[in-house]
Amino acid sequence: MARVSFETVHEVITEAFIRAGMREEDARTCARVHTESSCDGVYSHGLNRVARFVDYLRRGWVDAHARPTIVKEVGVIEIYEGHRGPGILNALFATRRAMAIAAEQGMGIVTLRDTTHWMRGGAYGWLAADKGYAAILWTNTESCMPAWGGKNTRLGNNPFVMAVPRDKGHIVLDMAMSQYSYGKLQVTRLKGAQLPYPGGFDQDGRLTVEPGPIEQSMRILPIGYWKGSGFAILLDALAAILSEGLPTNRIDPIGQGSCTGCSQVFIVFDPRQLGGAKFSEQVADSVAAYVNSSTPDEKSWEVLYPGQSTLRIRAEHRANGIVVDNGVWAEVMALAGRRRL
Amino acid sequence: MARVSFETVHEVITEAFIRAGMREEDARTCARVHTESSCDGVYSHGLNRVARFVDYLRRGWVDAHARPTIVKEVGVIEIYEGHRGPGILNALFATRRAMAIAAEQGMGIVTLRDTTHWMRGGAYGWLAADKGYAAILWTNTESCMPAWGGKNTRLGNNPFVMAVPRDKGHIVLDMAMSQYSYGKLQVTRLKGAQLPYPGGFDQDGRLTVEPGPIEQSMRILPIGYWKGSGFAILLDALAAILSEGLPTNRIDPIGQGSCTGCSQVFIVFDPRQLGGAKFSEQVADSVAAYVNSSTPDEKSWEVLYPGQSTLRIRAEHRANGIVVDNGVWAEVMALAGRRRL
Repeated sequence: MARVSFETVHEVITEAFIRAGMREEDARTCARVHTESSCDGVYSHGLNRVARFVDYLRRGWVDAHARPTIVKEVGVIEIYEGHRGPGILNALFATRRAMAIAAEQGMGIVTLRDTTHWMRGGAYGWLAADKGYAAILWTNTESCMPAWGGKNTRLGNNPFVMAVPRDKGHIVLDMAMSQYSYGKLQVTRLKGAQLPYPGGFDQDGRLTVEPGPIEQSMRILPIGYWKGSGFAILLDALAAILSEGLPTNRIDPIGQGSCTGCSQVFIVFDPRQLGGAKFSEQVADSVAAYVNSSTPDEKSWEVLYPGQSTLRIRAEHRANGIVVDNGVWAEVMALAGRRRL
Repeated sequence: MARVSFETVHEVITEAFIRAGMREEDARTCARVHTESSCDGVYSHGLNRVARFVDYLRRGWVDAHARPTIVKEVGVIEIYEGHRGPGILNALFATRRAMAIAAEQGMGIVTLRDTTHWMRGGAYGWLAADKGYAAILWTNTESCMPAWGGKNTRLGNNPFVMAVPRDKGHIVLDMAMSQYSYGKLQVTRLKGAQLPYPGGFDQDGRLTVEPGPIEQSMRILPIGYWKGSGFAILLDALAAILSEGLPTNRIDPIGQGSCTGCSQVFIVFDPRQLGGAKFSEQVADSVAAYVNSSTPDEKSWEVLYPGQSTLRIRAEHRANGIVVDNGVWAEVMALAGRRRL
């Protein structure tokens, strides 16, 4: 592990993306989102994901120069074709457009069809909250998880994001429908450790805390067993319907990596036009305070709301540099054509 | 157990509600929703819940004659004050009003503040889907579950509903944020059985499948551990913000049973104004078919989408009578002032 400043990480990822064919401004924007993800401790979609994105660009699975075009406008809903442009650029566009509609109408919805991996979904929730908006966002994905009662993968992990703005720290949920990601299974296996709670079934149908057998069976567990399975199914259907896009069963045959061709929904509310910013703030503060006032359990010394620890990690990384894995950092440096800083 | 026809159950519950002070038409409407819940196999909010609702009416916790009044209209959003009227009537009003807005604008949102228990949340999802609409609905509640890492109750189970219409059977998810309801814990304990998966912590912080110790500790488990905890927190904050209503931390001090004073959100989409009814139907069919095409696991012989088994139970109960618990039925008959049918 090493520490690298935010600015340096941002610069190096930007260079990697430019070398992969992106325009400088676009590269800088995408690199910023990857850097912020690592800075917030979400390594899986930060530095760790740079090489794979570059690979997708080179394979032509992501079109570096495509931009969303409008398909249809119905009231406060706008549907866009994503043309398999960079998922981050498409999702930033969609979030900002939904905020603009919300600023005029109290709420706005933008849907994106035929887009690509948005990387860290939470990025768009934090963005909306930073501007004073509340948001509900989700994407569907290729299948990676069985439906409840099934053995073979039929459901995406369909990340789902909710954000409520708050001066003292936004409340932001960013969760996939699987209890653990394959990334978490891999990291846990490489450490020779077990999962804290069962993460899936082995190939004989036994619930297990061992990551290896779950990676092999691909029978990862939906959150809440049958409940997360159902939630994933509904998110998938509604994303495809609202975006006039593809559901998981039609993303799977594309077979171009993760999320290529996926459907996304960006619902944004402007609390300033409802009960007002002050009321919204008071509600959010009281919700956060109520959670924080919990008596910690046997394993905890404090009880946090979603997003609370993110701000701590962010501040620590901003002050002392982002923690980077040496191997991952060397890989990104190489993609940027650098031998040393 | 006995079997009673849909019509008789409906008639007897109607009489019970009239005797509790409701106008006949309102009693009939509320009784229909309770009857449909039992008919769909959701006994907890069907016949089983009649006595408690009557009790709330008699205590004045629910105002039988209150009707929602509009607070504010912002674009496609309408906010209503529920005046603690019957939760079913308020929620039916809100769903229908959101459908009417959606019919004109592609989507509509109605929020309700200061309402009361809507009973089975899925009822409003099925209603919207029956009329060809997709929906996302939720309510907050009094706290009944600790936040993740906490010991004492801080979160509502905040039922969350999603519905997608489909001629061959709607896809409808109706899930609370807790892995199991207290009702399920009680029923399991009375049978002397264990939960199929851990349902919470005992008072010493051990995860357990024994219902009794969880009922005592009130440390029921959120779906997906930390994930469902976060989801419940965001649903609560957003419901209160969008309805200008109360979050869980301000419902708790009211102390008038379950959900009195709660905040609800009804988001309704009209697929006919987006990709069209035919496109929506094709997407929904393909999603359902993909799930159904799963290879069943070791414990299953088929894999179903949310709502699929509901239609089977409904058809069976319509054909052969609703299965009623003798004790519960006798109680409802007594509330209706009947000795025998």
